[in-house]
This record gives sequence, C-alpha cells and structure tokens, in this order.
Amino acid sequence: MNPTFEILSQGEEILTGQIADTNAAWLSQKAVACGFTVTRHTSVGDKLDDLVILLQEISQRADCCICTGGLGPTSDDLTAEAVACAFNLPLEFDGIAFAQISHYFARRNRTMPESNRKQAMLPQGSERIDNEWGTAPGFTMQAGRCRFVFLPGVPLEMKHLFQERILPQLSARFLLHPSHLITIKTIGLGESAIQELINPIAIPAQVQLGFRAGADEVQTKLLFPFGYPDTAMANLVARFSEQLGEYVFAIDGLNETSGDLVFEVDKRMKQRKLTLAVVETASQGLLAAKCIGCKWLLKAVYEQPETGLEQKLIAEANTENLMSTAQAIAVDMQKSSGAALVLVQLYAGDDRQFHDKNESIVLYNVLLTENVCYKSHHSVAGPIKRKQNQAALLSLDLLRRYLQNKSSLES
Amino acid sequence: MNPTFEILSQGEEILTGQIADTNAAWLSQKAVACGFTVTRHTSVGDKLDDLVILLQEISQRADCCICTGGLGPTSDDLTAEAVACAFNLPLEFDGIAFAQISHYFARRNRTMPESNRKQAMLPQGSERIDNEWGTAPGFTMQAGRCRFVFLPGVPLEMKHLFQERILPQLSARFLLHPSHLITIKTIGLGESAIQELINPIAIPAQVQLGFRAGADEVQTKLLFPFGYPDTAMANLVARFSEQLGEYVFAIDGLNETSGDLVFEVDKRMKQRKLTLAVVETASQGLLAAKCIGCKWLLKAVYEQPETGLEQKLIAEANTENLMSTAQAIAVDMQKSSGAALVLVQLYAGDDRQFHDKNESIVLYNVLLTENVCYKSHHSVAGPIKRKQNQAALLSLDLLRRYLQNKSSLES
Repeated sequence: MNPTFEILSQGEEILTGQIADTNAAWLSQKAVACGFTVTRHTSVGDKLDDLVILLQEISQRADCCICTGGLGPTSDDLTAEAVACAFNLPLEFDGIAFAQISHYFARRNRTMPESNRKQAMLPQGSERIDNEWGTAPGFTMQAGRCRFVFLPGVPLEMKHLFQERILPQLSARFLLHPSHLITIKTIGLGESAIQELINPIAIPAQVQLGFRAGADEVQTKLLFPFGYPDTAMANLVARFSEQLGEYVFAIDGLNETSGDLVFEVDKRMKQRKLTLAVVETASQGLLAAKCIGCKWLLKAVYEQPETGLEQKLIAEANTENLMSTAQAIAVDMQKSSGAALVLVQLYAGDDRQFHDKNESIVLYNVLLTENVCYKSHHSVAGPIKRKQNQAALLSLDLLRRYLQNKSSLES
Repeated sequence: MNPTFEILSQGEEILTGQIADTNAAWLSQKAVACGFTVTRHTSVGDKLDDLVILLQEISQRADCCICTGGLGPTSDDLTAEAVACAFNLPLEFDGIAFAQISHYFARRNRTMPESNRKQAMLPQGSERIDNEWGTAPGFTMQAGRCRFVFLPGVPLEMKHLFQERILPQLSARFLLHPSHLITIKTIGLGESAIQELINPIAIPAQVQLGFRAGADEVQTKLLFPFGYPDTAMANLVARFSEQLGEYVFAIDGLNETSGDLVFEVDKRMKQRKLTLAVVETASQGLLAAKCIGCKWLLKAVYEQPETGLEQKLIAEANTENLMSTAQAIAVDMQKSSGAALVLVQLYAGDDRQFHDKNESIVLYNVLLTENVCYKSHHSVAGPIKRKQNQAALLSLDLLRRYLQNKSSLES
C-alpha cells in the first residue's frame, strides 16, 4: 500500500473560480510519480474555523498533506494561525525567518512593511522551509498520522520549494515505491486510431495504459509498477513504437529527455545546420510563432487565400495541381530566402469549410530540400482554431519526418 | 447571507493530476455570479466509502452542492451508488432515462453496450435531468440541508446542463442576490501601474476591487453588491476609465458585450471595411495567428532579424532611424499588398537580450494609414514567449487605438 497524500489549497481566488487550481494538478503528478496515492484535494477560503476543522480531519486520515496558500502578510492569510488552533501549538517568532524576509526587501531597496513580520511567526515545533524565491518561508510538521507541509500558493515559489526542499525530505521519510511512466508522443493520430493500432499488443495486467489528448500531441502512457524488469519494459515500449510507427515523434521516460514537436525539430535542425523558410495559409503565422527562438527559421509568409494565389486553386482544387503549385511556390521561396529547406502549406476548402467546426479542409504540404520535394496531405476538422493549430503541427511534422529519416516519406 | 455552495468533483484523472479541475473553476464563477457563496471544493477518486461520507458531510453543511463525474457506465462510476448508500435511497430503474440512452446509441447506429443500462438507475425520489448532449442523464435531489445536483464530468455536457437546466431551477429555489461584476480590460499597464493610477479614486467599502493579470490583458474587476444604484455604479466605472485612459480597450458588464483585443479590433475593421498587412519581427507570426478568421488581414511577413534588414539597424539602433526604416518598409508593403493599413514591428535588442528573461528589448511600431504614419514604442521584458506575446499585442494595440480614435496617438 502506498502512503496516502492529500492537497489542501487555500484561497478565495480558487473558490470564486478566478483561477483553476493548477497547483493541485501539478503536485498530484509529482506525488503519484514518487509513489504516493493521492486521495483527496480540498480548496477552502479564508475562514479560520473551516481551516481548523479540515486540518484536524486530515491529520487523522492522510499520511502526508501539502497545503498551499495563506502564508502571505495580510489579515486573510490564516494558515499559521489555523495550525496553531488546530493542534494547540502557539506561534513563535523565528529570527532566521525574519532576517530572510528583511533581507528580501533590503535587496530590492524597499522598506519592509510592518505586516510582513507576521510571516516570521511559525507554529511551535515546526521546521522552517527557507524560501529564496519569495518573501514567506514555508514550514513542515507532524500532526497525528500526517506529515504536513505548508507552502506559498505562488506557483513558481511552490514548485521550486517542492522540488528542491520537500521531495528529498519526503523520500527520506516515507518508504516509497515509485512507478515508472513512459509517454509515447504522436501526432496525426486520434485516440481511437491509436487504440485500434495497439489492439494486437498483449499488455500485462500490472501495466496501466492511459491516453492524454492535448492540443499539440496525443500521449500514450504506460505506467509500470515499481520493480518491473527493464528489458520487459523496453520490449513492451518497442512493440508500441512499432505499431504506432512514423507517427511517434518522441518517447519520454526511456533514455534521453524529449520535448514537444518543435523541440525535436529544433534539435535536428541545429545538428544538421539547416535553415528553413515557410509559406503558411491555414495556420496563419502559428507555425512560425511556435518556432520562437529558433534561429534556423529565416522567413515566414502568410497570404490571405482570397487575395493571393490560392483563389483559382480552390476553384479547381485537386491534389495534383495544388501540389505542383505548392512546389512552384517553394522553388521561388528557396531562391528569394536563401533557406536550405522550404515548407509550403496550402489547403483545399472554402471560407465556410474553414470556419465551420463541422466541416473539414484538406491540407497539402510540400517540403523542398536541396534536390527532393516531399509531400503530405491530411484532412483537418474542428473549430477554426483547432484547424489552425493542426495545420501548423502537421506541416511541421513533414519536416520532422524528413529530419528523422522516416522511410514513409512520399516524394 | 448568501446561500452556501460546494463543488464535489469525482475522478481519478483529477486526483492523479492528469487534468486540472477546470470544471470547478467554471462552476464557481457561475455560482458566485448568481449570488451563492462558494465555501469548498473537494475532489475524490473512485472509493465508495470516501464518497458516501463526503456526501453525508456536505448534506449537513452546504445549501447547495454540484457534483460532477462518476455517472459513466463503468464499474468505477460510483456516484449513484454512493448517493443510495449515503441517504438510504435504493436505486430505481428509470424507463425514460433508459429510452434516452438507447436512443443516443441508435441515432449513431451503434449497439448499446449492456453496461450503459446502469446509467438509467437513479436514487429513489431524485429528479432526472435530461441530457441531450451525451449518454448519461444527471439528477437532482434534496438531502438534509443541501440541494444536490449530479452532472456528468465531461465539460461540454456539464456546462450545457448547468446553464440550461440547473440555473433556472436554482434561481427559482433560492432567494439569490446576485452581485454585479464589471471588468475593465487594459493592455500595456502592469498591475502595480494600475494600482498607482487608481489610487486617487475613493472606492466605497461595499465595492470589491480585484485584479486579474492574464497573458493577453490585465483585468481590473469591480464587484458591486446586489441593489447598488446604477448611476453610482456608472460613475465609479467612469472614474476608473478616466484614470486608466487610453489603456482601456474594453469594459465588460456595462452595456454591450466585449471581447479580447482581437475581437475589438475585428469589430472595427469590419465596420470600416479596412484591410491590413503586417510585418512582424519579435512576435514571429503570432500577431497574424491571433487574427485567425479575420479576412481583413491580407498578408503577414516575418523575417529573421539577422538575415533581414534589421541587422544593421540593431548595430546603430536609435528611435529615429528605426522608425524611419519601419516607415519605409510600411510604404513598400502598402504598395505590394494593396492593404489600406500596414503595421510594421521592429525592435532594438540583440539575440541575448531577446532570449534572456532578465533582459528587455525595445519594440517599435509603425501604423501607416492612407495619409498618416502613427508610431508607438514600448519596453518589453520577460521570458522569450512573453516577449513574443507582448510584441503581438502591443503592435495590435496601436491599430486598436487608431480604430478607437484615441487622442494620444503620436504621428
């Protein structure tokens, strides 16, 4: 049995829905990854009584609880006071915490407001958690069955503190059996298409299969229990890779770290010292925008289909003439931009088909290299912003396949 | 005192952090807007005992509770069973629910799996909530002090059912005093700059002031209590508008509906039948991408600073020559694109300054109309993706100011 883990978030901005509690989602992922079973999330506002009762309840039922928020200097920041009430531990002045808070203001040439003194008052017997990313220290303590950790709600501070201070403490305190997560990232296949492709694979009962369809990729997740043999793991992942084939652009959790599609393309463009120019239509600048910071992107052009060259194409659209037009545009662009590679995106579909979420367009991509012209085409459906995003990704994916030397490339 | 409101979310995908509980945030906003006080959010997984105890607790302490998730056909969908246990109400077969579920499958030419029959079993005495957006009906019932509403966790279904079925029921059942929210949307000012500008305004104690800094706009929120006089409200909002001046691009909650910056620009471009071409640098396609679906955008070009014309500009950067270069580019673009308006974006800053989150660049914008050339410049800081996004917005904002005839425009 894994130790149980709860998350308590404090803040009116969560209760009123001004923000979604993304801290809780982030903390849950980390807790699950290191071997806890997350049993409950709770969010409350700045009512002292509610907080006191909740802390007492949690101290009876959970092995570990991370509480975020309520450590600020204002009167509605009640966490330390609630802990003091719940477990009968008076607040004590912590000189080191106070020096750190003063230092934070001094470094910024600001006078410390009197109210910040409050942040140096910690419950008796708790351990301070130094916070060099913000004003307030966190603290940790045992109450009943539960190891409590109190962290600021500011995501940046919370994440730093959890990773660098809390995780090592928890790993030392609990006997954890972390499971191993492998994520296979694909583009161009929906969840049900993936399901069908992997149907022939026999998945051992201990291995948990999951999917996560994001805007930019579909992730197929395999969660292996603690101690699962490495070779059996590698073999199962290889079976998945084989079945999903060229659609796989990266695998997380094996050897090297991987990133998103742009990361994978960027890595290879740099390695091979290549440059790129693009002509976008359906993605309308989004392909270029996704490549921010990539110096190999020399030029990007978008032209409104109705004023540009596509008007007549749409009227007489067929794969052959769209592809040959795209190729002609690519040749021109290669000359004018001086880029080694040129990616040209066109689509067949009228204005209504592009806007209507129940209609689809057909996307045509051409990648011109030094001496070969590669092609791909895809049907793209959904709301206009989804079509835009898919167009950016699917055009870029033709480049990715070329860079990864996929045999399926069609020239 | 407003009636109290809790949200209970059921689902392992929330507890394991695969998704953030955005349903809870959405429901909270709706509940607050119609006059409830949200007191707690809880998320649990598929443990029957946990659910039973929680439902009993909530029935003692809240006036209303919306529960999402756990209504599916599989064995880990436990909501109805938990309600049956918690309140001693046997599950009963609902013939109409069953007919609806069968119909859902029939319409899609699919055979209804036997497991879906479960979704037609509802706790004795509960009222079915018909769901034409998915397979499972919701249900509602009174238990103890609390009005419970059970809805599917799929966001689309949940939102439809809440808006169209639940809100009218709750408004009839509870005496609600909705407060009135006015949101003033600005661009180009940080939270602290806004604070400083509005300092001279005397805000009545009953009016709640809040801020929300998103990636694309900063929202200044004024929450007026139920029954606050209309003229006093309008006067206070006018004072805010006056102080924040030209930075305000839209106000939500007064008369007309407003949207984001692109929405405001789009509305006016269409009204005045104008067209636009853009040259992007720091935003690298993102400005064009934000305008997806806007047919007045005829052309957009991005060129890598180091290969294009900016290289020498950066070396000898000063406002005057950057602005005159931008103007020359705009004139060329106006001729070649045939657009009525041309927006050109350049920036001063080297590669390191652009990438480093602790450095800033200076953004220069030029808007060329039929006969005038308007200008703006801004310092832009932060991580590269923030710089990119800010550049897209601040360039677009020069166009917005022109379209709204702001007197501050500098030509």
